[in-house]
Amino acid sequence: MTKKTTIISEPIFDTLNTIQDDSRYIMTTNNPMALLNRIHAPEDFNRLTRDQLPDLARQIRQRIIQVVSENGGHLASSLGAVELTLAIHYVFDLPKDTLIWDVGHQAYAHKLITGRNWQFDTLRQYKGISGFSKIKENPCDGFTVGHSSTSISAGLGISCAKYLNRDDSHVISVIGDGSMTAGLAYEGMNQAGDLKRKLIVILNDNDMSISRNVGALSSYLSRTFSAKYLQTLRNQFGAFLKSLPKIGEDIYQIAKRSEESFKTFVTPGMLFEAFNFDYFGPINGHNLDHLIDILDNIKNTADSPVLLHVTTVKGKGYAPAEKNPVYFHGVGSFAVDTGKANGSAAKVPTYTQVFGDQMVKLGDTHPELVAVTAAMPEGTGLMDFCNRFPDRFFDVGIAEQHAVTFSAGLAVKGIRPVVTIYSTFLQRAYDQILHDVCIDAHPVVFALDRGGIVGEDGPTHHGLFDFAYLRPMPNMTVMAPMDENELARMLTTAVQHDGPIALRYPRGRGTGVPVAEPVKPLEIGKAKVLCDGDDLLIIAIGTGVQQALKAREILATEGIFATVINARFVKPLDQTLLLAKAAGLKRIITVEEHVLAGGFGSAVLELFMDHGLTDLHVKRIGIDDCFVEHGPQAVLKKEYQIDANAVAAAARELHGSR
Amino acid sequence: MTKKTTIISEPIFDTLNTIQDDSRYIMTTNNPMALLNRIHAPEDFNRLTRDQLPDLARQIRQRIIQVVSENGGHLASSLGAVELTLAIHYVFDLPKDTLIWDVGHQAYAHKLITGRNWQFDTLRQYKGISGFSKIKENPCDGFTVGHSSTSISAGLGISCAKYLNRDDSHVISVIGDGSMTAGLAYEGMNQAGDLKRKLIVILNDNDMSISRNVGALSSYLSRTFSAKYLQTLRNQFGAFLKSLPKIGEDIYQIAKRSEESFKTFVTPGMLFEAFNFDYFGPINGHNLDHLIDILDNIKNTADSPVLLHVTTVKGKGYAPAEKNPVYFHGVGSFAVDTGKANGSAAKVPTYTQVFGDQMVKLGDTHPELVAVTAAMPEGTGLMDFCNRFPDRFFDVGIAEQHAVTFSAGLAVKGIRPVVTIYSTFLQRAYDQILHDVCIDAHPVVFALDRGGIVGEDGPTHHGLFDFAYLRPMPNMTVMAPMDENELARMLTTAVQHDGPIALRYPRGRGTGVPVAEPVKPLEIGKAKVLCDGDDLLIIAIGTGVQQALKAREILATEGIFATVINARFVKPLDQTLLLAKAAGLKRIITVEEHVLAGGFGSAVLELFMDHGLTDLHVKRIGIDDCFVEHGPQAVLKKEYQIDANAVAAAARELHGSR
Repeated sequence: MTKKTTIISEPIFDTLNTIQDDSRYIMTTNNPMALLNRIHAPEDFNRLTRDQLPDLARQIRQRIIQVVSENGGHLASSLGAVELTLAIHYVFDLPKDTLIWDVGHQAYAHKLITGRNWQFDTLRQYKGISGFSKIKENPCDGFTVGHSSTSISAGLGISCAKYLNRDDSHVISVIGDGSMTAGLAYEGMNQAGDLKRKLIVILNDNDMSISRNVGALSSYLSRTFSAKYLQTLRNQFGAFLKSLPKIGEDIYQIAKRSEESFKTFVTPGMLFEAFNFDYFGPINGHNLDHLIDILDNIKNTADSPVLLHVTTVKGKGYAPAEKNPVYFHGVGSFAVDTGKANGSAAKVPTYTQVFGDQMVKLGDTHPELVAVTAAMPEGTGLMDFCNRFPDRFFDVGIAEQHAVTFSAGLAVKGIRPVVTIYSTFLQRAYDQILHDVCIDAHPVVFALDRGGIVGEDGPTHHGLFDFAYLRPMPNMTVMAPMDENELARMLTTAVQHDGPIALRYPRGRGTGVPVAEPVKPLEIGKAKVLCDGDDLLIIAIGTGVQQALKAREILATEGIFATVINARFVKPLDQTLLLAKAAGLKRIITVEEHVLAGGFGSAVLELFMDHGLTDLHVKRIGIDDCFVEHGPQAVLKKEYQIDANAVAAAARELHGSR
Repeated sequence: MTKKTTIISEPIFDTLNTIQDDSRYIMTTNNPMALLNRIHAPEDFNRLTRDQLPDLARQIRQRIIQVVSENGGHLASSLGAVELTLAIHYVFDLPKDTLIWDVGHQAYAHKLITGRNWQFDTLRQYKGISGFSKIKENPCDGFTVGHSSTSISAGLGISCAKYLNRDDSHVISVIGDGSMTAGLAYEGMNQAGDLKRKLIVILNDNDMSISRNVGALSSYLSRTFSAKYLQTLRNQFGAFLKSLPKIGEDIYQIAKRSEESFKTFVTPGMLFEAFNFDYFGPINGHNLDHLIDILDNIKNTADSPVLLHVTTVKGKGYAPAEKNPVYFHGVGSFAVDTGKANGSAAKVPTYTQVFGDQMVKLGDTHPELVAVTAAMPEGTGLMDFCNRFPDRFFDVGIAEQHAVTFSAGLAVKGIRPVVTIYSTFLQRAYDQILHDVCIDAHPVVFALDRGGIVGEDGPTHHGLFDFAYLRPMPNMTVMAPMDENELARMLTTAVQHDGPIALRYPRGRGTGVPVAEPVKPLEIGKAKVLCDGDDLLIIAIGTGVQQALKAREILATEGIFATVINARFVKPLDQTLLLAKAAGLKRIITVEEHVLAGGFGSAVLELFMDHGLTDLHVKRIGIDDCFVEHGPQAVLKKEYQIDANAVAAAARELHGSR
């Protein structure tokens, strides 16, 4: 099977890393948003002429920067994809053609020109528009996304469905180079190249995922050669090919392949060729004319998988974001003129920071301790550990499955890995935790950051399922701290524990308690009574403990007095304490920031029933079988009834039932 | 970064697919097992001379065929890896060097020469030796395996641990070409090429995983060119290179790369080169001399990742297995002389067969129905569907994550995919089910074959976690049939349901009931009372229903009369029926072939408590927080106390507590 590789003949290498003046962020004073404000639907965009697009790009950048500077959001990726978005919309016919943005955080420009400009001020706000692509939000959003690397698989599925439906419209999947490191993307490519249905994959290569990219693939993609050498060598090679003897029928094929092999050896085409993709690129992803021409060409000729390699600059057109794309990947509100974050420096550290600090301390005293993360060294607070112990820090890229099996391998030989991954992303490694870690009970520590409701990132990112997926795993211990001091204690406990152990903590700032030195480990499976009361029992875990304590204060003013237990462990539960208290108090509330099905409260029910406790009244506070939308954490906790008021209301009801 | 590619210069292409006489399965009459019987430990193997190895290979094949013909097992893969096993043991120093067999079903020869020859008769029997590699079974087993594609990640982890421990011994991961299609393998390669620690990956390429391979990678690996053309072209290319003008310093590097690029374009080296692996091969994996020489060379020179590409014949040395490697991949007992299965043809079909038949029937009446499987077209019973509707059948290779996201894409455009994957392997797609299917409630059907205890494949393969991981997912419906008739009805229900829905059924033969035509769909969330009794209530799901009915018969002879409910649905539960019956009978047993934590019984407890039922006595029958070992299904159900006797015992206890 011979595949086509097209190297773009323009002197791309010269322009690749230069910044064009016309795409700078410039505030014009005269009717600055005229073009953008004219677009209410794809039809309005289609009326624009090609020479209006650079102006529109400027207006889009201005709008994105304005809204993200107020609401926070994924700035750098979206700024990098403005020209690409316009070129795709100019060439293809959406929503008839299907466009899928991998992850979806680069789709702000796409949102602005598909009828969402007027709602864009509500970006990431409760009941406002989502920070990611979402089918239910707009027909031009081809697939609901959030986790990385799904776009090739979903695009191929849509392409196959179109084939079966005799619909010959196009499917375009835009995927970042960071997302390419995930196994899911590879699995999708492997089948795409086999099925040979129409599929246009655009590799948006900015040499970054969220943090700087890692992995062999990344270094492979970034190899460049000067255009001059390339041209000289190509000419020589052509002459060589013409001189080949015709020694049989196959020789033509071999020669053709060798020519292509040569062409591709200086570009990443070689890799994609192996997967039966036609390769085009690399092309400057900020040059609208080139983008439109090549997309038009691909649209008119492609009847099997095509990969277009586009090189972009993350943060393009906004100097602070170009300078610091990691910070501006996902950012809070900031001042547009300086790029500086709004608000005074908070005095209370985040759980993530406390975790990172404790990792460094433990690293000093535990030479066997290593940290493993999946493309999130900053997000998980591990940069200090990385800088202090570079040999003991592993960023595996967006590759959660590998992170876990790799860590099992480390543990086999006496190294103690702390796998630090957001709760929602660790879902990718469910099988590896169960199969590669738990069966042999390898001492791997799982640090699940962003457990519970994460807020503005919404349903794709809340970490609301981890207790339920971890606790059925034999040999696994599961903890959640009530505050940042307990987080430090739990991490210390975990690195000394001889078996798989998980600690799950929330996004955001701690409660403000200091970390008490020296940090003492906890006894596995021991809960703690925080306060006594004769009317009912509240058993809470993690952030639920804070809600329980607040509820207790509210209730006390009403003359209802609750015993509050900080369970600390989802597994194993403190059987002795919980059974004794439950048998005495009978009226019980469990509190967790987690779905109810199979969660912490469910574990508590199992315990009570297995031990024959009867005559209990138990109410479980948690998320009741639905996906939680996006919005501020506090708003969501109130709306989904897992805050202190919800606990207090349940308590009143139980108390009244006496 | 320039990587080395070494094409083996022997005329490998001529010998690749020929069978050498000396490795045929020949029963010699004079002390036929003398060599093998001398080996009690690696030290004994190390005393053998190189020229004794072909004899040993023959004896090993004989022993494997003898035992597998009696016990059943993974015959074809293990026969294909005999010479490779001997060469690795001959060159490397186990267990100091670490050897990881991917999946582990090809490791029988390895077991025989590492002290397990005398126990080999207990292969896959209860308390006998495992059918896979297992750290706890033998120090020469580098990693516990079962699921595919973990060996590169685990090997890299072990290699990094050795580096940190200043241990410069080797790590060898042997992985099949089928396992290479999984994203996990790719993620492992990507980091291995980046870290550049010592790691020897042996690609055991037999153009098969379990069934025939699929995917672009597979067609890529299998491209071959004649040695003559290859040689001619190489010479020409060398001359061309020498004629290059020296136009700068870089030209040498480019030229060097182009030579290598040329060399690799006729071999799969190109792909692995992209990952910074040194590539050697392809080499005939049945030629002991070549294997030993090249492994010795690699051992002495490699200080960064190396990939050795070895071509083997699945079933090598046993004619029936060479002819039908799919059948002999995992096989029951058979007659050695003919290869025919022992025992008379069973009259009762398996659940898998009933599923496959019903899929064909539904395919006729539902043009939107398609089937998706992950390298298991035969194992999941889909071959008839595949043959009848080739355009509507998708085998994605060992790529469960992609299978699910791909199916979500299909569903977006009105196609109705039935994702048919063994319960234990669907664990790989946990995140894709939750994130890509459930958030948007796409109508994807999940058919989980091999749910519950699978038997001889043991802890890595039992499907005991699916209720617990599926039921917390919002929008998901979960069913399990009590018999094969109900399986047909549930499948019919599922393809008409407008949302994500899973049906989970066991490995093995059905109960013998006929499938009642026409097959009627079930009402979602409705359970069924199978028989009434005034003493207690048994609520069972799936295979648990059969145990409940048997227990009821036992109990009836003792004067204890149970109401038995077939729950049919794990989610949603039949609230009205279960609450009414529970409130009346008070003494309740739940029965499931599943872990207890978060399972079906746990869901029932949640229901009772949420509705304020008190004064209940509930016993849950299921697997209590441990991994279930390997052995016959019936033996394991008895040992782990989930059979009818266990249900009856629980009933007696509850009855006595009245």
